[in-house]
Amino acid sequence: MIETRLTKAFGLDHPILSAPMALAAGGALARAVSEAGGLGLIGGGYGDADWLEREYRAAGNARVGCGFITWKLAEQPELLGRVLERDPACLFLSFGDPRPFAAEIAAAGVPLICQVQTLDHAREAVEAGAQVIVAQGGEAGGHGANRAVMTLVPEVADYLNRAAPEVLLLAAGGIADGRGLAAALMLGADGVLVGTRLWASAECLAPRPMLEAAVAAGGDATLRSSLPDIARGLDWPAPFTIRTVENDFTRRWQQDPEGLRAAGGEAEAYARAAAEGDASMAPPIAGEAVGLIHDLPGAGEIVTRIAAEAEGLLGGGWRR
Amino acid sequence: MIETRLTKAFGLDHPILSAPMALAAGGALARAVSEAGGLGLIGGGYGDADWLEREYRAAGNARVGCGFITWKLAEQPELLGRVLERDPACLFLSFGDPRPFAAEIAAAGVPLICQVQTLDHAREAVEAGAQVIVAQGGEAGGHGANRAVMTLVPEVADYLNRAAPEVLLLAAGGIADGRGLAAALMLGADGVLVGTRLWASAECLAPRPMLEAAVAAGGDATLRSSLPDIARGLDWPAPFTIRTVENDFTRRWQQDPEGLRAAGGEAEAYARAAAEGDASMAPPIAGEAVGLIHDLPGAGEIVTRIAAEAEGLLGGGWRR
Repeated sequence: MIETRLTKAFGLDHPILSAPMALAAGGALARAVSEAGGLGLIGGGYGDADWLEREYRAAGNARVGCGFITWKLAEQPELLGRVLERDPACLFLSFGDPRPFAAEIAAAGVPLICQVQTLDHAREAVEAGAQVIVAQGGEAGGHGANRAVMTLVPEVADYLNRAAPEVLLLAAGGIADGRGLAAALMLGADGVLVGTRLWASAECLAPRPMLEAAVAAGGDATLRSSLPDIARGLDWPAPFTIRTVENDFTRRWQQDPEGLRAAGGEAEAYARAAAEGDASMAPPIAGEAVGLIHDLPGAGEIVTRIAAEAEGLLGGGWRR
Repeated sequence: MIETRLTKAFGLDHPILSAPMALAAGGALARAVSEAGGLGLIGGGYGDADWLEREYRAAGNARVGCGFITWKLAEQPELLGRVLERDPACLFLSFGDPRPFAAEIAAAGVPLICQVQTLDHAREAVEAGAQVIVAQGGEAGGHGANRAVMTLVPEVADYLNRAAPEVLLLAAGGIADGRGLAAALMLGADGVLVGTRLWASAECLAPRPMLEAAVAAGGDATLRSSLPDIARGLDWPAPFTIRTVENDFTRRWQQDPEGLRAAGGEAEAYARAAAEGDASMAPPIAGEAVGLIHDLPGAGEIVTRIAAEAEGLLGGGWRR
């Protein structure tokens, strides 16, 4: 068992959180992660209250947290109170300024986890009173920015060591196995947030053909772009782009995002493809870690595997 | 002392190589790295025979290797033989197809090290008979591509484990201290290649104001672009771009590289600034690791520090 400040603070067996992936990380996935000894998070994402209600039911009585896209939560701040009433294990905010929500979260006695992509974001998170900061590298699937885990994590660790040593630090981006977890601990993290590897699981809510297309791809076959956001009419602010697997759609529009915008984003065709799992039109939302993923097991098994492999490496197994 | 397949194969005290940084890594830097127990490489780069001659003299009788930009070496292949005559500790090739040079290097009995940025590059390197593959992430300073160390290293490790388990693997990109070295070993590497951290050293041949500007920058203040190559009239092939610190020059042209090309690359002003150390015009060629660098010590001290910190972490010091 790998004991860190994170496992002690949250009473976990493994220093592993699941990313609250919008529309993909529902109650079953979060529950499976928590029951395996990590901490599962429901992806509140764009803030669909009915979806959240349903997925909270699916989580049953498992102890799970909930995450929001911060700039989207700002458009409907009343959702925050409804989630806080459920006494989540943590409230996770990413992609926007967390400070306007900090007082309400603190008043509810719920730990605040802020995901950051730059040092400025980290400073905002400390100001917001975050108990945990997740330093997310651009290798991550879905939305993110441009820094790499390899440098962002130690740089944020140095900053926290000076400015707020009590704040825990997690690494996110490209972590799909025990090698990634062990590396993150060496870089100064207290644990990891796992996205793509848990997205490629039996409990993921994305259509199965999307998962299969991602598992078939190598790590060189992903890209960051704004194409899916243009197609969905989502006004994501800078500096955030979304990493997906390459497909016919991204190859067609990659050099011409304004052309896609002018074409109305092919909105209907895109929405239909996303719902039906047509991965040639709507690209699988996954990160560089697809090159390390070759199966679609249950989320609980994934957590157990990552922890066991990391424990072996930390115990000296890194020697070849 | 950290013993790995690399230290055993090359008789090193530390699993650390210096990147053969064009125009910056001369004989004094390479010598200092080798004398500290790593393996230093002279940056043959664009292939200036007189420069190479002078820097090999500066290395004295230290055991050092030499690196070339592969696509540039292809334009003057006779340089390879002149370097091989010196019996270098290794011949390092990056940025192009190494296979045309493999037979000549093998015939000289010199170990071939190939730096790769994608899985396809790794396959070419294995075909070329490389003894060592360096998996370089895009967080690196100078030329590189887009993958992150966090995923590229374990994915190449898995490939080598299947296809060529005898080939050693190094990680490059963003590695500036013992945390980076320890993380790389966890990811499956046998050692690391260090660029930016050794560029920011007393022995670096770049003008001192360039180093000082880089040390003052945070890790969020770098970018990949083709702007310096346009300014220098260098026809770098895809997918390679060059990571530098942001400055007035990159901010001015970042959204308009074709405008810079139309302006003749501001070639004269750029060359003058690079020679004189005007970091507001010619950007310091350094990577995301600048955010982890706060001083300009000797290269030997840097190697010793990285090794000592990593040894502490691997011995259990990662626990906080």
